[in-house]
Amino acid sequence: MKIRVGFGFDVHKLVEGRELWLGGIRIDHVMGLLGHSDADVLIHAICDAMLGAANMRDIGYHFPDTSADTLNIDSKILLRKTNGLISAKGYRIGNIDATVCAERPKINPHVPAMKACLADILQTDEDNISIKATTTEKLGFTGREEGISAYATVLIEKG
Amino acid sequence: MKIRVGFGFDVHKLVEGRELWLGGIRIDHVMGLLGHSDADVLIHAICDAMLGAANMRDIGYHFPDTSADTLNIDSKILLRKTNGLISAKGYRIGNIDATVCAERPKINPHVPAMKACLADILQTDEDNISIKATTTEKLGFTGREEGISAYATVLIEKG
Amino acid sequence: MKIRVGFGFDVHKLVEGRELWLGGIRIDHVMGLLGHSDADVLIHAICDAMLGAANMRDIGYHFPDTSADTLNIDSKILLRKTNGLISAKGYRIGNIDATVCAERPKINPHVPAMKACLADILQTDEDNISIKATTTEKLGFTGREEGISAYATVLIEKG
Repeated sequence: MKIRVGFGFDVHKLVEGRELWLGGIRIDHVMGLLGHSDADVLIHAICDAMLGAANMRDIGYHFPDTSADTLNIDSKILLRKTNGLISAKGYRIGNIDATVCAERPKINPHVPAMKACLADILQTDEDNISIKATTTEKLGFTGREEGISAYATVLIEKG
Repeated sequence: MKIRVGFGFDVHKLVEGRELWLGGIRIDHVMGLLGHSDADVLIHAICDAMLGAANMRDIGYHFPDTSADTLNIDSKILLRKTNGLISAKGYRIGNIDATVCAERPKINPHVPAMKACLADILQTDEDNISIKATTTEKLGFTGREEGISAYATVLIEKG
Repeated sequence: MKIRVGFGFDVHKLVEGRELWLGGIRIDHVMGLLGHSDADVLIHAICDAMLGAANMRDIGYHFPDTSADTLNIDSKILLRKTNGLISAKGYRIGNIDATVCAERPKINPHVPAMKACLADILQTDEDNISIKATTTEKLGFTGREEGISAYATVLIEKG
């Protein structure tokens, strides 16, 4: 069996007047993430980690933020397509471990719903999808609540 | 054998009047890290990577910073407990690679002592624990010495 | 077969009057990265991930930025030496997945040339080297174009 590792990092700006989508679910908050799509920074980091592991370029290459096709798109669609891309190259998810950096809102209460959502899209066991959260202790742009960032690492397998 | 990957990231603020603990050892410095525990940002990133690899939530979930039990706690105790949690699920450490981002103090002279300390707690060979250091070239909150951040990636194995 | 994971992170400052080198190639831009070497932040992150995976300390340990030997050095030489170091310990590259964070210039048009360059140095298949790019949406020091950062994760194999 061939094993490969991938890593993704993404950032979106927090602004008023947008919904906050993270890990495929909508979270009640006074601000939301700005982007061409629904700006689900967690799903984007996971897509990038999957594409990187499979050596299939990155999310901006496949789903450009200048395309009308991806305007306001639900990032769950991007994740499903990303899974299709790596599957077509013979890879399957081993495990995913992702981390959201946000001062607010509290992410942890939403983790079970996010895991269920992503496992369903990726057609894998929930035990293969870990989502964690941390603050940056009021430091940096995430600490000042100017944005939210997400990291994801993934193992993919073939054969 | 089943292999899984995990990734952890943590940040703590640098303040005067606190001791600086990193990788389980105390380092002489004009400032220390602020936190509910001893704020050992390197151990925290490693714990989070281990928990994420095993899909067992995160350090804030197991050791909340609102609990009297963890007030001023030595993070080595948290690492030992984290190792117990993943062991109970049948996992053992493959290897850990961690990176400390700090403008000051110099981390590299302390790496051998940190590795020995962490290997002893995790009951693994020192060759399985790598600790690296970098500055952020005076950029960002670590560059301004407002805080220290740490990244950790880990492989865990089962069977 | 033994598999190990590594992770590298590096930052360099953007300044006028320097060439911009990324992934071993020169990119036309109004600014370049400042450093003791050519400041190829992408190669440095990859070197650190490789050294971390093999538990052989970090790039600052092997190639100190206080040494006359590394002044203005082409980072491709550092990468070749790093590959020699891990090879001497019996390891070979499994796969590398790296991410450049830069507001400008556009990285993606240069990815094929970077991959070809790094694969040649590392004597591995291009399919084992993934390079991705993202902005930080004008947030933080990369968003303000004060610097460029790079992340790399790597699997190495032995036996």
